[in-house]
Amino acid sequence: MASDMPINGESAGFETQGPRIVRVTVPATSANLGPGFDTAGLALGMRDSIEFERLPQGEVRISIHGEGEDTLPRDDSHLVVRAYHQACEAFGFPVTGLRLDATNRIPQARGMGSSAEAITAGVTAAMALNGRDLDRATRDAIFDVAARIEGHPDNVAPAVYGNMTVSWNFDAAHEVPSREADAPGVLLANGSGARFPGASRPFSAGYHTQVYEVSPRINAWIFIPDYELSTERARQALPAQVPYQDALLNVSRVALLPAALGGLCGEDTNSILFSATADRLHQDYRAPLMEPSASLMRRLRAFGYASMISGAGPCVICVHDGDDTSNIARVVSQALESGHWRMEHLPIDTQGVLAETIA
Amino acid sequence: MASDMPINGESAGFETQGPRIVRVTVPATSANLGPGFDTAGLALGMRDSIEFERLPQGEVRISIHGEGEDTLPRDDSHLVVRAYHQACEAFGFPVTGLRLDATNRIPQARGMGSSAEAITAGVTAAMALNGRDLDRATRDAIFDVAARIEGHPDNVAPAVYGNMTVSWNFDAAHEVPSREADAPGVLLANGSGARFPGASRPFSAGYHTQVYEVSPRINAWIFIPDYELSTERARQALPAQVPYQDALLNVSRVALLPAALGGLCGEDTNSILFSATADRLHQDYRAPLMEPSASLMRRLRAFGYASMISGAGPCVICVHDGDDTSNIARVVSQALESGHWRMEHLPIDTQGVLAETIA
Repeated sequence: MASDMPINGESAGFETQGPRIVRVTVPATSANLGPGFDTAGLALGMRDSIEFERLPQGEVRISIHGEGEDTLPRDDSHLVVRAYHQACEAFGFPVTGLRLDATNRIPQARGMGSSAEAITAGVTAAMALNGRDLDRATRDAIFDVAARIEGHPDNVAPAVYGNMTVSWNFDAAHEVPSREADAPGVLLANGSGARFPGASRPFSAGYHTQVYEVSPRINAWIFIPDYELSTERARQALPAQVPYQDALLNVSRVALLPAALGGLCGEDTNSILFSATADRLHQDYRAPLMEPSASLMRRLRAFGYASMISGAGPCVICVHDGDDTSNIARVVSQALESGHWRMEHLPIDTQGVLAETIA
Repeated sequence: MASDMPINGESAGFETQGPRIVRVTVPATSANLGPGFDTAGLALGMRDSIEFERLPQGEVRISIHGEGEDTLPRDDSHLVVRAYHQACEAFGFPVTGLRLDATNRIPQARGMGSSAEAITAGVTAAMALNGRDLDRATRDAIFDVAARIEGHPDNVAPAVYGNMTVSWNFDAAHEVPSREADAPGVLLANGSGARFPGASRPFSAGYHTQVYEVSPRINAWIFIPDYELSTERARQALPAQVPYQDALLNVSRVALLPAALGGLCGEDTNSILFSATADRLHQDYRAPLMEPSASLMRRLRAFGYASMISGAGPCVICVHDGDDTSNIARVVSQALESGHWRMEHLPIDTQGVLAETIA
């Protein structure tokens, strides 16, 4: 691009208001946290960083350093590029070409949210290249589009907002137990307007999330094995029905996560974290697909450490109040010495996706 | 009792350190909150008040005003007296006789925690008549004993602590997924001692609870019907297995309750409350046992009001951010005009059981 061209690219044929180059960084995430299958996610202090430059439509130039550099595509089938294009369409921005330089730390296909990261990065780039600050409204829009591209919200939510997130799909048709003749459908009791002044604001159908702040005292250990697992295979291992008591166990425990991770439990935090991360709905069913991971998780839990499979696996995540590196390393020393695992000690990310203007 | 006797009763044959007469007040509670079956409970701003006086062992004098005055027993089979005696034994206090004057507002057998109230009152009286202040440690002991007498913790917890509570049963044997040869059982990663210095403090087996503070903006409407329902019948209506997706719905929604009730959702509070109170695990199964209640709940939800069956029913509870009395009354006007319901508009109780010395 010639240096005398306007920097916002208007006259270069890709009509957009905003910077020409932005850098987007997105945290790794751990979804399916213990009892919170399909629900609870956590953002981790490990980021992929991607520089985006608008190019004329049709052009795609991709370079990748780090995780995935030998395997990821270099054309517009790259997930980041596809997400960018879909987001431009969803937001009504011009669909431009893209130069994309990625520095990836998040391992692929390990249950650490690499695909949510890619989608969040592409969607955020669409916002940032069109001059939008990442305020709450912009993040909400990014979450909405990214969750629809991903097809579920539980990794996307912490990638966008940081912290711990509880995500759900509000199905307006499903929410109304019976349809009485004079019932107006789901009209939520929120404020002005409508048939009853106090029962008016509908909750939109689709994905939603609630962010819970995580205490800075909480840290995570991530155990990354040298094998991969596809999310599809993991999903097929789940049953159609579950014992009533197993459902209740997860219900009682998932409701502890906001307290345990939020620092509301004082010196009981690690005890509550241990209870808050128990699960009977997914990990045992999937254990045969990832025995080394299930075994490591069980060993950590046998010593009282709040450990879970991260996402669909095979990574294992352990959350802890305080800094206990040497003890936890002793508990898992045999696994670490096998050479099949690496361990990352990470803070919890409290910022979510970030974008800065480069040019 | 002669007036020259020492007021603490030492020489009167019932050896206890503490006041002779105390007044204990205990809030009504709503358990099984929406998705939080057997888990989530809420304390309501409606209290039973009981005056207790120590009497020589074997003596029981009971007077009752208000709810239950025509039906409750006047001898030591009264639940409050039984709980007092069991608590004295559990705490190592002398088991004395009792004069008990109760002023009851909480309806019986309606799902508003009247039996948890009675047990909590009796256990608290044992503490108060033995000079114990209701600090956190005393409340924890009251909760422990009262939950064991009741057999489950979900009404007792909010009766003791106020606010919203999430209760669970920590079964040490059940918590360890596999028993590896060198695993030490459940040793929690909490501090000093034991085999690994960082993995040491066991979480005691039994009932536990986590208290979540409720925003003062949240109010409850309780709809009290003129029919009763036994908890045992309600329990028999539950299935042995549930669809996987139903379990996940409850998991995703119950984890919203701390945010929705805690005032973390700003102007979205009523929308989030509505999602946070959806359930697929108990209310539909029990609806045939209490059709008028299920119908009222459905009607309120059809208008967007966060409504649930209270406890095992048949009361209905609706939680709301703000003061919307006239609109909600219009939505349920037909039911109210039937004469089969009365409606109470209550704040959420944030104190739990209270005790004061009278003499």
